[in-house]
Amino acid sequence: MSDDARPRPVTRADVARYAGVSTAVVSYVLNDGPKAVAPLTKERVLDAVRVLGYRPNLAARALSKGQADMLGLLVNDNRNPFFAELCHALDQASADRSRQLLIVNSDRRQAPTSEQIRDLASRQISGLIIASVLTAGEQALIERLGIPSVMIGQFGETDGLSGVGVDFAAGARMGVEHLIGHGYTDIAFIGSAARYDPRERGWQEALGDAHLTPGALVHTTFSYQGGYDAGRRLVERGTLPRAVLAASDQIAVGLLTALREGGVRVPEDVAIVSFDGTASVDFVWPRMTTVVQPLEQMAETAIRAVLDPDSVPRYVEFATQLRVRESCGCTADD
Amino acid sequence: MSDDARPRPVTRADVARYAGVSTAVVSYVLNDGPKAVAPLTKERVLDAVRVLGYRPNLAARALSKGQADMLGLLVNDNRNPFFAELCHALDQASADRSRQLLIVNSDRRQAPTSEQIRDLASRQISGLIIASVLTAGEQALIERLGIPSVMIGQFGETDGLSGVGVDFAAGARMGVEHLIGHGYTDIAFIGSAARYDPRERGWQEALGDAHLTPGALVHTTFSYQGGYDAGRRLVERGTLPRAVLAASDQIAVGLLTALREGGVRVPEDVAIVSFDGTASVDFVWPRMTTVVQPLEQMAETAIRAVLDPDSVPRYVEFATQLRVRESCGCTADD
Repeated sequence: MSDDARPRPVTRADVARYAGVSTAVVSYVLNDGPKAVAPLTKERVLDAVRVLGYRPNLAARALSKGQADMLGLLVNDNRNPFFAELCHALDQASADRSRQLLIVNSDRRQAPTSEQIRDLASRQISGLIIASVLTAGEQALIERLGIPSVMIGQFGETDGLSGVGVDFAAGARMGVEHLIGHGYTDIAFIGSAARYDPRERGWQEALGDAHLTPGALVHTTFSYQGGYDAGRRLVERGTLPRAVLAASDQIAVGLLTALREGGVRVPEDVAIVSFDGTASVDFVWPRMTTVVQPLEQMAETAIRAVLDPDSVPRYVEFATQLRVRESCGCTADD
Repeated sequence: MSDDARPRPVTRADVARYAGVSTAVVSYVLNDGPKAVAPLTKERVLDAVRVLGYRPNLAARALSKGQADMLGLLVNDNRNPFFAELCHALDQASADRSRQLLIVNSDRRQAPTSEQIRDLASRQISGLIIASVLTAGEQALIERLGIPSVMIGQFGETDGLSGVGVDFAAGARMGVEHLIGHGYTDIAFIGSAARYDPRERGWQEALGDAHLTPGALVHTTFSYQGGYDAGRRLVERGTLPRAVLAASDQIAVGLLTALREGGVRVPEDVAIVSFDGTASVDFVWPRMTTVVQPLEQMAETAIRAVLDPDSVPRYVEFATQLRVRESCGCTADD
C-alpha cells in the first residue's frame, strides 16, 4: 500500500460543507464551546462527523490543552492474571472518564523503566498509574516530572506518591483464620521474599492469636513457576504442612500442580487458601478459596486520584473478602 | 495537590543553558538533524536531558510529523490468557520499533467499537492492530480512515485488511492425529459456534483420513465458563468421548475442571489436547498437551505489517507446534 493510495483525511472544512455550517460552528460543537450551538445544528454537525468519519486532530488539541486526555499505566507484566484483570478494570474506569489508557510493561527488554516513564511523560499524559515496584530513583523521577501519579496494589503508603491498595495483613489474617476454623494447626505461608509482605505478618498474627506455632515459611517468586517450585520443595522435604496460605493466586495454582504431581491430595492432605481473587482460580480443581481484592473499586479510585487528586485521600485502603470454594476443605454445599 | 505546587516543566532552553549550547543544537540532537552535531556536544546535550528530566513535547512533534509514533491495539478482552500473552508480545515488538502501544478493550461498556476506532484514529496512531472480531461496518470504517491496519489471530484472510495468523486447520489436524496415535477412536471437538472455525474442519479431516467417525461436536463460548459448561453437558449425558480436541486453552481448562468435578479422570478416562499454547496450561494438572501458536513471531510480523506494509505479504500464516505434556495420555518420560 503506497501513501498515494490512501484516501485524503477528512477535514473540518469537509464536515462544515456537509453539514452546511461554518468551520467555527463545527469547532463549537466538537469542543463544547465557547459559543452555544442550536440542538438541531449540533445534530447535523455530529451526523456529518459520523458519516464522513472525521477525526479531529487530538494531537493539536492536546497541544492547546496541554494534555492529551491519555493516562499512562506502568505494569510489570500484563500477562500475570491479577495484573491482566487490573489492566482491564483500569481500562474500563478510564473510559468512564473519557480517557484512553497507554499501557506499558515495565519488564520490556528494550529500555530501563526510567526511560519508559520519561517517554510516557513526553506524551503529555494527564496522569500515571503505577502497578509495578519502583526504585527510589524512578519514584524521584516521577515526582520531578510533576505528573499526577498513583500507586496501585502496592504495600501500604509510599512516601511522596498517593496510593490505592488493600489491607493485605487483614486479608491474610482472614484467610488463616478460615483455615484455623477447619481445625488445621500446622499452617504454612508461601510468599515472596522480594520485600516485606504484610500478608506474612497477617499469617503470623492470626497464628499467634490462636496460640499456634507458625508452620513452614517458604519464600519464592510471584509466578506459577514460583508456586510450583515451592510445592516441589515441600513434597521433597517429606514433611507437608496441613494447610497453606499462598500469597497470590498464581503461587497457589503452581503449588496445586506440584502437590498433585507428587500424589498429594488437596484439600484432604493439604488445604490451600489463596490471595487475589482472579477468575482463573475458580476453574482449577479443586476450586480455590481465595482472598479477593476489589479490583473495580480500586481502579475507579485510582483514576479519580490522578484526575481529581483533591477528591481522594492520599492513601486509600480497601478491605478484602473471602471467596469460599473447595481448596480449603469446605464442600460446595457449605 | 494544586497546580502551583508542581515544579515548572523543564524546557529546551533549560537544556541548552545546562549543556552550554544553543536551543537549535538541542533540537538537532533530539530530532537527529537536520544538521549534524559533534559527538561530544551531543553527549553533553543528552546528559543535560537526563539530568534535568527534560521531556520533549511529543504532541508537538506528532503534529509536525503527522503521526504520534503510537500504535493502537484493539483487543476483545485483555484478561483472556491468550490475548494477554498476545498483548505482551505486541508491546515488546512495538517497543522494538520505538512505538508505544495504545491498548483498547473492545468489550468496554461505554462505547461501541466503532467509536473506539474513531478515537484511536483521532490520536494520529501510525497503525492499528486488530485482535478482535469486526463487523463489516467496523471494517469499512477502518478502511475509510486510511490507517494501516492488520488483523491478528483471526481465521484466514479478511477482504481488504492484511492479516497475520496460524494455519488453524493444520494445527487441529496435528492435535487430533496425536490423539489417534494414542489409539483413541472416539474423539470429540469442543469449540465455538460463533463463526466457522477451521479447527473444526481440521478435526473432521483428520478423523476422515483415519477412517474414523467424528465424535461429539460441542459448541460453546471461548471462555473458562464455556469449557466448563461443555464438560458438564458431556458428564450429564453419560456418554463420554475417549478424547477431546478443545479449540482453546481456556475451554480446555474449564473442561478439565468439569470432568474432575464429575469424577472423570484425565487422561485415563478422557484425554485432552488443547489449542493456543499459553503458559497457564503448563500449570494445571495433568499439564495440558496443546497446539502452540508462535505469538512472538506473529506479533513481530504484525508490527512490521503496519509500519512497513510493503515488506510483508498481505496475509502471513504461521505453522503451529504441538507441545506434548500429560493430558493426552503421554507420560513425562515419553
